[in-house]
Amino acid sequence: MTSSPIYAPVEEGLLKLEECLDSVARVDFPLLALMLGHILKRKGKRIRPAITLLAGNVFHGSHVLVPMAAGVELLHTATLVHDDTIDNSLVRRGVPTPNSLWSGKTTVLVGDYLFANAAELVSRTANVRVMQVFAKALMVICDGELHQNHNCFDPRQNRQAYYNRISSKTAALFSIAGECGAILGGASEEESTALRNYGWNLGMAFQIIDDVLDFTGEQAEIGKPVGNDLTQGTMTLPAILFVERSRDGNPVKDAFAQRSEAAFKNAIDVIVNSGTIQDSYKIASDFCDKARSDLRVLPDSPSKQSLMGLVDYVTERRK
Amino acid sequence: MTSSPIYAPVEEGLLKLEECLDSVARVDFPLLALMLGHILKRKGKRIRPAITLLAGNVFHGSHVLVPMAAGVELLHTATLVHDDTIDNSLVRRGVPTPNSLWSGKTTVLVGDYLFANAAELVSRTANVRVMQVFAKALMVICDGELHQNHNCFDPRQNRQAYYNRISSKTAALFSIAGECGAILGGASEEESTALRNYGWNLGMAFQIIDDVLDFTGEQAEIGKPVGNDLTQGTMTLPAILFVERSRDGNPVKDAFAQRSEAAFKNAIDVIVNSGTIQDSYKIASDFCDKARSDLRVLPDSPSKQSLMGLVDYVTERRK
Repeated sequence: MTSSPIYAPVEEGLLKLEECLDSVARVDFPLLALMLGHILKRKGKRIRPAITLLAGNVFHGSHVLVPMAAGVELLHTATLVHDDTIDNSLVRRGVPTPNSLWSGKTTVLVGDYLFANAAELVSRTANVRVMQVFAKALMVICDGELHQNHNCFDPRQNRQAYYNRISSKTAALFSIAGECGAILGGASEEESTALRNYGWNLGMAFQIIDDVLDFTGEQAEIGKPVGNDLTQGTMTLPAILFVERSRDGNPVKDAFAQRSEAAFKNAIDVIVNSGTIQDSYKIASDFCDKARSDLRVLPDSPSKQSLMGLVDYVTERRK
Repeated sequence: MTSSPIYAPVEEGLLKLEECLDSVARVDFPLLALMLGHILKRKGKRIRPAITLLAGNVFHGSHVLVPMAAGVELLHTATLVHDDTIDNSLVRRGVPTPNSLWSGKTTVLVGDYLFANAAELVSRTANVRVMQVFAKALMVICDGELHQNHNCFDPRQNRQAYYNRISSKTAALFSIAGECGAILGGASEEESTALRNYGWNLGMAFQIIDDVLDFTGEQAEIGKPVGNDLTQGTMTLPAILFVERSRDGNPVKDAFAQRSEAAFKNAIDVIVNSGTIQDSYKIASDFCDKARSDLRVLPDSPSKQSLMGLVDYVTERRK
């Protein structure tokens, strides 16, 4: 993904981003350096920082877009580390999680260190508004994680609760990635709002498709077992749509009650074959349309075209 | 402590601080409101936020001293929550810890939420420098916690490692409490530096005495079992001084190797009767003298007198 032509307008910024993230792991304390190195080697698609860089480059750019983008990526990484600690996940992106290698205690503290580092990177922008937006997003994200945890193994979750949850958990960060990039690049109020909304809609679509892939992907591709969300007690859109519509029996409720491998396998099979996968793609695609339409007010530029390209990428994403 | 005459010059600010902290717990999400209410009901001595308010009031004061002070207190609270989660502590300040009431997962997330909230409160100051100082301190604190965790049950820890650790873990926050208060109150560079150093020296003394009280306090007064640090594998100053001087045998090493109740009781008794408690008080008292001397450059005012009074309080503290 990082070599995709979509990223061409911010190629230099993305290289600097990698340098910036590498420098995070260069610390005097050998255990911490080892852990940070391990965590940061799990390179993601860099979609969130790319949004920040592209959003800023639609306007006048700025030398502080790179630390901002790095702060966004590191905040995302920190939430993954705490997520894995508390989920006891052993593998993420096909790589052993810190939690499977070090004690829970150490992993919680390294997650905290990454949160702190993200805040420090954002503070390098010296932009009060961006720092305020970032701090508020951090609260929203934690709130979303708490809701997900609270609703665990509850088969009565509805579509609105799901939207609220993924809005906090995922779309909030995509949203500030766009908004803060725009602010730092010198966008107008209207343009910053457009990029905030673009990020939010794209983040909603991204998470829905992530949740669909959890049902349909191959284990080797998505880097975790198929149906992992459901077996962890998390109801996502395909499961919720299925439960909304099913009249006779509820295999999800049965699986949550029994928590046996057979019951989960049955629930996953029934959901995958129920048509709600296609319906979920349709809903994600509607969010993508909104994201495209948010971009309309922006001046034409290669970066704007890339933001459009990111929407297509998310729509077509199959892993 | 909060009704002490030392706090008189910032009485109004401390009342507003309580309102500000109460408002943190007023959230729509019932589980989160319950947990925050429980956590925030464990009122501490409010020394850190009092330093911020007093430091600012030595100069011109500011309406953003209260959110800054609340951010400092909440960051302290967040570290306690994560500390208790990962220590599996069941009681703190005589009150059950969140960890003993909710799952580790929920507690980690609530700690994250408090970190986020602290950052949001500090961002209300709209002061870039203060926000940068705060973010850096957050990194230092996490680094200190990681070091403490890393050196757990290692009987070879020396005095310098101990000073580094408590500098990061405790003095760093006292230090920014003073420095940020001074900056927001309109202090000169020299005065801000003086208050940063004052906070650091006071924080060092405070932590040493805290560590001494862990050996000498009554369980009912300190709210945790006597010798708790040692049984958790943490070497503090009285233990380190003792090991430095002892020629025959090493009861701490034995206790860390055996981890039996009898071995820990023996090590605690030997340390308490070795004279290193008195030596530790002397070292704390030297830090207090430095803190007093840091205040010399400040203009005379009731708030300056209270900062002096805080040093006396820490020196004489017996619980």
